[in-house]
Amino acid sequence: MATSTVPVQALVFDIFGTVVDWRGSIARDLGAWGPTQGLQADWLRLADLWRARYQPQMQRVRSGEIAFRTLDALHDECLDELLPMFGLQAVTPAQRAHINRVWHRLDPWPDSVPGLLRLKARHAIAPLSNGNISLLLNMARRAGLPWDHIFSAETFGHYKPQPEAYLGVARQLDLLPDQVMMVAAHNDDLRGARACGLRTAFIPRPTEYGPQQRTDLKAEADWDVVAADLEDLAARLGA
Amino acid sequence: MATSTVPVQALVFDIFGTVVDWRGSIARDLGAWGPTQGLQADWLRLADLWRARYQPQMQRVRSGEIAFRTLDALHDECLDELLPMFGLQAVTPAQRAHINRVWHRLDPWPDSVPGLLRLKARHAIAPLSNGNISLLLNMARRAGLPWDHIFSAETFGHYKPQPEAYLGVARQLDLLPDQVMMVAAHNDDLRGARACGLRTAFIPRPTEYGPQQRTDLKAEADWDVVAADLEDLAARLGA
Repeated sequence: MATSTVPVQALVFDIFGTVVDWRGSIARDLGAWGPTQGLQADWLRLADLWRARYQPQMQRVRSGEIAFRTLDALHDECLDELLPMFGLQAVTPAQRAHINRVWHRLDPWPDSVPGLLRLKARHAIAPLSNGNISLLLNMARRAGLPWDHIFSAETFGHYKPQPEAYLGVARQLDLLPDQVMMVAAHNDDLRGARACGLRTAFIPRPTEYGPQQRTDLKAEADWDVVAADLEDLAARLGA
Repeated sequence: MATSTVPVQALVFDIFGTVVDWRGSIARDLGAWGPTQGLQADWLRLADLWRARYQPQMQRVRSGEIAFRTLDALHDECLDELLPMFGLQAVTPAQRAHINRVWHRLDPWPDSVPGLLRLKARHAIAPLSNGNISLLLNMARRAGLPWDHIFSAETFGHYKPQPEAYLGVARQLDLLPDQVMMVAAHNDDLRGARACGLRTAFIPRPTEYGPQQRTDLKAEADWDVVAADLEDLAARLGA
């Protein structure tokens, strides 16, 4: 890919895995809360099986099989099947809602907040996540993620990597696609962004899926930037 | 109106006039820039006449006469007529773009940033403005407006006071309308918000239109809160 000389004006970030540690956070959060409710489960395995349903659930929306609905709604639909697998079929509606909203309470990786604060000094920063707007807003307020704005699949009615999401960001920011850089720990997301003309930055998160992770351990293409983490990305972008 | 006992979760703010001083800012900004370009004009009067076209221009969109377009586009259309009135018909395209983007460079009233910082501690805060997303984002980054998110007429494809804007905020925040409070210096905006079930807060900006202002000098209904400014609003909401 030819290197663009246009300055990057805005950075948009994948969230689950790239900015926050969903697997460890779910296990910590529900592991601390469960005993207060008399609920015991293998929360780490619940997190893994829940996440395994993420792409297939979104694919039902992308394919047109079901109408667009938020990730909160897709997550909740998964619980119909998951809760009985973990002996949690008798939870109250309030407990189920608390479990489903654990995705609003995910913790950032240690470099995320300091890296974003540095990047924000020079660039507009926003999520571009398949999480819904309220999820991303609640997460940001709790974790101190200093976004200038929130972009979500919900904003555009299309889940990444559909082009409407990437192109929608450029349009709503009144920028050309190559003035926007997508930052992600997932090569697929960057392939989607590059196909729309966005710049791309990869950072590995080799334990996102736990110690046995086999995917996305490294950059699989000549992304515009490959950095160790978000603080290193800030350094590489001169922020 | 019966007082709701539901806690307010999110505050959304009118921007032009309520949070920023468009009239004074335009005169200061273009008044300092004009001489560097060899351009002289009565910039305060330009600001007044430009703003006088604001509601009629949006009404053409609301009525369906023209398709939705951003406020940047509507502002630019106004310049076709305004620039010759002020002897500015010979500006270059770059100069015209700089003039049009003065709406991205408006200064907040002195209480706005300190008030918003206090309000943000307890509530999600966002604009709900007829300004477009890039305008609001550029303004916020320049002025230090600490939004959690940006809501715009552009988000919903409808200009306030059309109900789609107010109801869209509640839907995207996953809140009930009465968990959201609209904050504005304009009674019409609050009427639109209340008609959709939102809570309402009025703050007067008696010099928004200059020393001769006649409208919106006081609350014209029993809005849920009437405050002197955004710092007073924070105090009244316990923030």
